[in-house]
Amino acid sequence: MSKYSVIGTRVHRVDGVEKVTGTAKYTFDMVLPNMLYGKILRSPHPHAKILSIDTSKAEKLIGVKAVVTGKDTIGKKQGIWRRFPELCDEEILCREKVRYIGDAVAAVAAIDEDTAEEALDLIEVDYEPLPAVFNPMEAITEEAPQIHEGVELNININRHLEWGNVDDAWKDCDHIIEEQYVCSSQAHVCMETHDALASFDHNGKLTIWTSTQAAYYIQVLAADMLGIREGDVRCINPYTGGGFGSKFELDSAQFCAALLSQKIRRPVKIVLNREEEFTATKRRTPMYYFVKLGAKKDGTMLAKEVRVITEGGAYTAMGATALYLTGFFSSFPYKYPNYRYDGYRAYTNTAPTSAMRGFGAPQSTFVGESMIDNLAEDLGIDPIEIRRKNGMTPNYVVPGQAWIQSCGLHECLDAIEKHVKERGKLPPNRGIGVSAYGFMSGGIFNWFDTPYAFSSAIVRINIDGKVDLFTGANEIGQGSNTTLSMICAEALGVKLDDIRIHSADTGICPPDLGAWGSRETLMNGNAVKRAAEDAKNQLIEFAAAKMGINIVYDMDIKDGWIHLVDRPERGVSYYDIVKDAIRGKDGEAIIGRGHYTPHRKGMISPAYSFGVQAAEVEVDPETGRYKLVNVTTAHESGTVINPVGIEGQLEGAIMMAGGYGFCEDQPMDEGKILNPSIADYKLIRALDMPETEILEIDTYEPEGPFGAKEAGEGLTNPTAGAIGNAVYKAAGVRIRHLPITPEKVFRALEAKKKQEK
Amino acid sequence: MSKYSVIGTRVHRVDGVEKVTGTAKYTFDMVLPNMLYGKILRSPHPHAKILSIDTSKAEKLIGVKAVVTGKDTIGKKQGIWRRFPELCDEEILCREKVRYIGDAVAAVAAIDEDTAEEALDLIEVDYEPLPAVFNPMEAITEEAPQIHEGVELNININRHLEWGNVDDAWKDCDHIIEEQYVCSSQAHVCMETHDALASFDHNGKLTIWTSTQAAYYIQVLAADMLGIREGDVRCINPYTGGGFGSKFELDSAQFCAALLSQKIRRPVKIVLNREEEFTATKRRTPMYYFVKLGAKKDGTMLAKEVRVITEGGAYTAMGATALYLTGFFSSFPYKYPNYRYDGYRAYTNTAPTSAMRGFGAPQSTFVGESMIDNLAEDLGIDPIEIRRKNGMTPNYVVPGQAWIQSCGLHECLDAIEKHVKERGKLPPNRGIGVSAYGFMSGGIFNWFDTPYAFSSAIVRINIDGKVDLFTGANEIGQGSNTTLSMICAEALGVKLDDIRIHSADTGICPPDLGAWGSRETLMNGNAVKRAAEDAKNQLIEFAAAKMGINIVYDMDIKDGWIHLVDRPERGVSYYDIVKDAIRGKDGEAIIGRGHYTPHRKGMISPAYSFGVQAAEVEVDPETGRYKLVNVTTAHESGTVINPVGIEGQLEGAIMMAGGYGFCEDQPMDEGKILNPSIADYKLIRALDMPETEILEIDTYEPEGPFGAKEAGEGLTNPTAGAIGNAVYKAAGVRIRHLPITPEKVFRALEAKKKQEK
Repeated sequence: MSKYSVIGTRVHRVDGVEKVTGTAKYTFDMVLPNMLYGKILRSPHPHAKILSIDTSKAEKLIGVKAVVTGKDTIGKKQGIWRRFPELCDEEILCREKVRYIGDAVAAVAAIDEDTAEEALDLIEVDYEPLPAVFNPMEAITEEAPQIHEGVELNININRHLEWGNVDDAWKDCDHIIEEQYVCSSQAHVCMETHDALASFDHNGKLTIWTSTQAAYYIQVLAADMLGIREGDVRCINPYTGGGFGSKFELDSAQFCAALLSQKIRRPVKIVLNREEEFTATKRRTPMYYFVKLGAKKDGTMLAKEVRVITEGGAYTAMGATALYLTGFFSSFPYKYPNYRYDGYRAYTNTAPTSAMRGFGAPQSTFVGESMIDNLAEDLGIDPIEIRRKNGMTPNYVVPGQAWIQSCGLHECLDAIEKHVKERGKLPPNRGIGVSAYGFMSGGIFNWFDTPYAFSSAIVRINIDGKVDLFTGANEIGQGSNTTLSMICAEALGVKLDDIRIHSADTGICPPDLGAWGSRETLMNGNAVKRAAEDAKNQLIEFAAAKMGINIVYDMDIKDGWIHLVDRPERGVSYYDIVKDAIRGKDGEAIIGRGHYTPHRKGMISPAYSFGVQAAEVEVDPETGRYKLVNVTTAHESGTVINPVGIEGQLEGAIMMAGGYGFCEDQPMDEGKILNPSIADYKLIRALDMPETEILEIDTYEPEGPFGAKEAGEGLTNPTAGAIGNAVYKAAGVRIRHLPITPEKVFRALEAKKKQEK
Repeated sequence: MSKYSVIGTRVHRVDGVEKVTGTAKYTFDMVLPNMLYGKILRSPHPHAKILSIDTSKAEKLIGVKAVVTGKDTIGKKQGIWRRFPELCDEEILCREKVRYIGDAVAAVAAIDEDTAEEALDLIEVDYEPLPAVFNPMEAITEEAPQIHEGVELNININRHLEWGNVDDAWKDCDHIIEEQYVCSSQAHVCMETHDALASFDHNGKLTIWTSTQAAYYIQVLAADMLGIREGDVRCINPYTGGGFGSKFELDSAQFCAALLSQKIRRPVKIVLNREEEFTATKRRTPMYYFVKLGAKKDGTMLAKEVRVITEGGAYTAMGATALYLTGFFSSFPYKYPNYRYDGYRAYTNTAPTSAMRGFGAPQSTFVGESMIDNLAEDLGIDPIEIRRKNGMTPNYVVPGQAWIQSCGLHECLDAIEKHVKERGKLPPNRGIGVSAYGFMSGGIFNWFDTPYAFSSAIVRINIDGKVDLFTGANEIGQGSNTTLSMICAEALGVKLDDIRIHSADTGICPPDLGAWGSRETLMNGNAVKRAAEDAKNQLIEFAAAKMGINIVYDMDIKDGWIHLVDRPERGVSYYDIVKDAIRGKDGEAIIGRGHYTPHRKGMISPAYSFGVQAAEVEVDPETGRYKLVNVTTAHESGTVINPVGIEGQLEGAIMMAGGYGFCEDQPMDEGKILNPSIADYKLIRALDMPETEILEIDTYEPEGPFGAKEAGEGLTNPTAGAIGNAVYKAAGVRIRHLPITPEKVFRALEAKKKQEK
């Protein structure tokens, strides 16, 4: 028998047929009897006092059933960093002050969307505009207006990381470079905008169906903000049309729908339109990087010092984590003996910045990978060689931070080196840039202060051998329902088709922290595997008894066959033993339980994946226009559970990370986002996509289920850096301000020509 | 502290607010995207061959999306007595023959109900009518047409019960009476007609939402009839508008909706209209009773011999169980040393007869309680005295059948005797009739051949102390969600409001055989109690550790306080210990499991409740019209879990059982039911209701949760007999053919006058 029967095979997604036939239900599709439609009134001012809100005209409009403002709330400020009350700073429905264009001030429930829209126009808000600040570098000056009471210099939070002795190390360096970079914002642009359907029953119990990455968080946060117990909230995540980091905090659609339903005791649905999605939801954190990097002549990097100011926008959100992670990943994927990071997050009167796929690492990787190329050039060392010299290796310990067990970085460097050689001598104006990266498999930090295991799963085996798998994991399109079903099938020894997964319904599934930070495969996968093994062991007891085998033999289940590990032909049918076992247990179905919380793995993540990417571009030296020709990625994610899934993740990541490096941006005028539509916001489209190739490197992660680890989010990290390095190789200009638009390349080429003259 | 905090208190139903505000969702209310509406074509013939069915015209009708006939099925015959394949005799969609007016032959799914109705008219069925038989006494003669192939004399099944030596015992009797009785049919008349919404997904998995008493049965039977695995069917029972025995078999709405959805892969909803509900669903079994009863002069009953022929209608259904139970309950509630029962169920060309509240016992109780009054009169003994002399007592063993542990029959007799005395001397033409009865608390027989425990429950305690209770029990209006929540709250020691119950969804709840035979309180109650105690014990471990108590002390939880049983002031908060315990278990929620399958309790039921009812009537001697003046019931159901629930059950039972005795009937002409509407079918309405009074007798059933047993169905047994006895007392006529209509009383009075002349 081959090692695995399900893992590593090319299967259809378990939700594939439903999705391609259009029968999969999203919150967007849902309708309940007596349902009302909600709309949210948002601030047109970046910073203003609310003097009064008059909703009386709106309330009188025929078809309007309820209007709520901040006065209808319990007046609590929310935040996902619940361990730190001072970071819970967002009211959602503002009572006294608005802090960005898009801040919510009122919401309406009406019999249809048009009526609700009309009612918004009838709400009269009397604002007193206040001076506003938009740039974080200005926000932290004495002159800037104060955005949150009691927060000096608008510094929301700072993070410090340090090991070794950076100040001493500079003396030992043969070469030191200091550079500044600016990382821009980016929108998540999910296919499904934020939406929620909330229904309070007459016993005061709330059910929310919503497009979310973390049903459990929404349950807890909604309860908190409504002043009810979390056990009285059930959050159900039907299929979700993308999250990418934008959907694991309580949002205005969820909160306003719930508040309206609490008031009117009818189901209320709110779907944000695309303009709201761009302007009034959270986005990737823009960062200002100031970096000093020193090395020996031979390329050995001795010290790095990083200072970062991030544009926080109006509220904390997940920005505190992004600030922390960009500092941690600024050391990646290299062994810096001396390292210091100081990050500051500044409040600004812009839309809050928060988590987005990569979570601070695309920024740090862009900066770090640009600089290591610059350093290599200065020292006359090959870019791959300098990475090889400093790159992390298995069992490396990041001092005081993390224990990296598996690490395939060097194999990835070898593979990309081979790839670059194979591309041969390039035509003029072409260049290949290389970028190395690593990423985590879920976070260990518990700012949410959950008392539950990070992941839990329950496996129930029914009389016909079919399996109900209950997990709090959130299927957001990333394929977790498929991956977890595969893990369950493999661990239990049955067919994938035998598994029916129930996920992300807090009424019936055990808690899970949700789909963010690339945590589901490793963390929930471990819980699922343990639950399946718990159930399997119960069956093996009955099989062993029936077969009367010598107790020294090990038994296992594979493909529905319970057998001796060393004599696989000796066995009994799983389906028969299920029947025996249920009878033996007086008719109780077989139930297995498993949970996973990382222990003894440092402060960041239980495991890290690594990779190296090569981007090839062709630049027009006259106009600066350039084209992504090829992006090849050597990637290791431990054992590959679902190869088709990884391919999809890779292509999606190149589209998204390429967009971050190449074209996506959110220009603003006095805090107003100027391109809040898919027509004006430039995404990489199918026709713009480069050739993509994946070179899968084999590793095994001892902490992961069957040796698996992260396989989707880390892929977002390298591309901006690889593009920057490729543009430098092709055109000789270094762009330090994302995105690397053709316009910026043109201006740099012009400046370079002028300088050369 | 008082003994119980939740049990025995007067609480609102947990679903009460939803129900009175109209927000509770029934299958009837459900809508899914792309849903189609189904209708069923039914036979107009009581017995006919199907020569051909032409659906082509119907298929061409605009708006029709699918038509199915027997040819679309896998050709399997269904039945709920799965251990006996020969009793699985119903195709639902007939292929070769129809056997009653209402048998289904085709079904249509269309964009709306009108179109579906129109399509039914376009289906051309070529029938060859066959000779039919309607009366069971005729059906078992040689001359009768054969209804099912290979079934001689149309005898579907027979049952025999015997103990002692009846033939010898007659010699010792001083007085023997022999009488014949006819028990009529009765319709369940649920507020919600049979309905189902079936949705097959593209992976071949089926979800059925349906009004049912047994979601688990529907899951299994639907899978069986569709040729798919039961793990691929999820049956969800939303709120159900009444069952009364009519809704725990697979019905035409469920099967046709599922078959149509399987064909068209869209959701299909079928709601039977009221006429179909009366003519094409199952009904109470009419029975022909032939009884011989012998006693000593002092009233000691020595022997009883009962022969019963039941009108089976076209299929077996639950009729086999009704045949068995009417035989068992013909011995109730008395200690017959010698007893023999022979029952025969005859197929007829009428709508199948099956289970209905009381399940054979209302018939046997009417006959038995009429005859014991006749016997008492013959012997000159007071009716209550003769019952006292023969009545069952605690720990009585019905030979070879049942072990009755708790029994409050004698206390009930005392209470009714007191009540009758208090009524004093009655005016002329008034009479009080007494009737004693017993009933079971769920059946032990497993004709369904389930491999699962009869009842199972899972209790999950969340971090805030709120409890998710998962049970397969079916809330059908009888209040099981409330009763089970109360048991859970009491057993765990928390507030009722802390419980959130999830019931009767086979995808997420452990199996339960459903709500029939008065099984949920005792059987599911035991499972819930055990699951709650399992969870409680896990908490007590942590509390004991925290308090550092001497291990000889016992601990318990009550009102959220974990304390020493003997020093209740020494304790800790449940809510605190929940947090500790979840942390201690590395974040896994506390999960308790419990199941219950009766063992060592004989062949019928784990427990029996008893009661005595007195009905007072006033008869107009000229016209036979009579009025129910007062019905008083002394009742014992062990510990009363939910007193308000019992009151509701009692009033409902008097309405239903009074109707059975007084006015409900289903007259037929050549197999056609003549009154298939609520206008023509006579129910007891609010204005017809007598005064009702309940005298609760305290008992404790060791097998039941907290000492509880059955409390709703048994109440349907005594009323027809009590009315019959009261009419005899008031007017001197004995009516032996149900219902005891004024017309029958009038005719009997006329005959009596003629005889007296």
